[in-house]
Amino acid sequence: MIIMAGEKVADGRSIRRWRVTISMVVILLRVLALFATAAATIVMALNKEKHTFAVATIGNTPVKIAITAKFQHTPANVMFVIANGVATLHSLFMLSMLCFVRDKYDFKGLRFLTAAALDMVTIAVVSGAATAVAFMGEVARNGNSHARWNKVCDNFERYCDQGSGAMLASYIGILFLMLVNMLNIFEYGRLINPSSNNPLAA
Amino acid sequence: MIIMAGEKVADGRSIRRWRVTISMVVILLRVLALFATAAATIVMALNKEKHTFAVATIGNTPVKIAITAKFQHTPANVMFVIANGVATLHSLFMLSMLCFVRDKYDFKGLRFLTAAALDMVTIAVVSGAATAVAFMGEVARNGNSHARWNKVCDNFERYCDQGSGAMLASYIGILFLMLVNMLNIFEYGRLINPSSNNPLAA
Repeated sequence: MIIMAGEKVADGRSIRRWRVTISMVVILLRVLALFATAAATIVMALNKEKHTFAVATIGNTPVKIAITAKFQHTPANVMFVIANGVATLHSLFMLSMLCFVRDKYDFKGLRFLTAAALDMVTIAVVSGAATAVAFMGEVARNGNSHARWNKVCDNFERYCDQGSGAMLASYIGILFLMLVNMLNIFEYGRLINPSSNNPLAA
Repeated sequence: MIIMAGEKVADGRSIRRWRVTISMVVILLRVLALFATAAATIVMALNKEKHTFAVATIGNTPVKIAITAKFQHTPANVMFVIANGVATLHSLFMLSMLCFVRDKYDFKGLRFLTAAALDMVTIAVVSGAATAVAFMGEVARNGNSHARWNKVCDNFERYCDQGSGAMLASYIGILFLMLVNMLNIFEYGRLINPSSNNPLAA
């Protein structure tokens, strides 16, 4: 009986150590997702390029017009900024939940289920925004001869590159969100399984 | 002791009835998701409209050219067809898994975790494709004055409407996939919790 109790205590310790490790990984992944989506939001929101075209010459004076490409000119980019901003707030919210909500306030793992639902919706929305920007960028780079849409990126190269960078950051954020979502679901199963998480209840 | 055993049997029965109900709901949702994404794939893949323009008149003979709008002309639409096709195959695969893989072949709910991962990726990909088509359709309908992209839908109205229909079907499919994903995660927690699912182990 003494040996059994000893085993249980050792078991409890190793389970606690495992759970702390998982929590650390979850926090790290959430912080990385936060940085990635925040970077995507900021890089896209600051995307602006001014280009001066010489349109005619009157006498010896060239007539120039300046055209500015802004992210607001494409609805997909606006949605992208909003979606990545919301994803950043979501990561902040989840991190604060991790810090303030302890297991004893948790009802049957409802915390994990809520996190899974919110993560799923965030992933879907950010993935939608990033993919829309990707295809819009494709038209901007190559044009579309069928619709007679001209390419834009030959004149606004930096603008297009900055948009691509934001898109890449967003996809990296999605990847971290997916990893954290899977870890979270895995932990949900372990949490409400008394034999693996709560040695006293076994 | 006899009363306790009786309670356990009754408990086992009600749990079995609950699990059968959940399984039925999951199958129904998967079938609905299957139909929605299959419809999106087919409607988009058949999207084609021929329009004849009178471009000039030589003598009394009008010179006409026929322009055909096809879904292949927009890369976003091609990705849409592929993504929804893959989502349809995913639903078929999941339904066949539900029919052939029984609990006894399942290792610690790995089946549920795999399903959650595959569902998550499918939701992200289909959401990306549907949103890309949505924003591409917005440009086709309204044009973009900043990029000097003209609207296309004034001449190809049916083409645009059919694309919108496919997009709607795809979003409905995503909704069903999200519901089934949440149910699946919920069931994962219950399955590997011996006290709620396997009365003999409690």
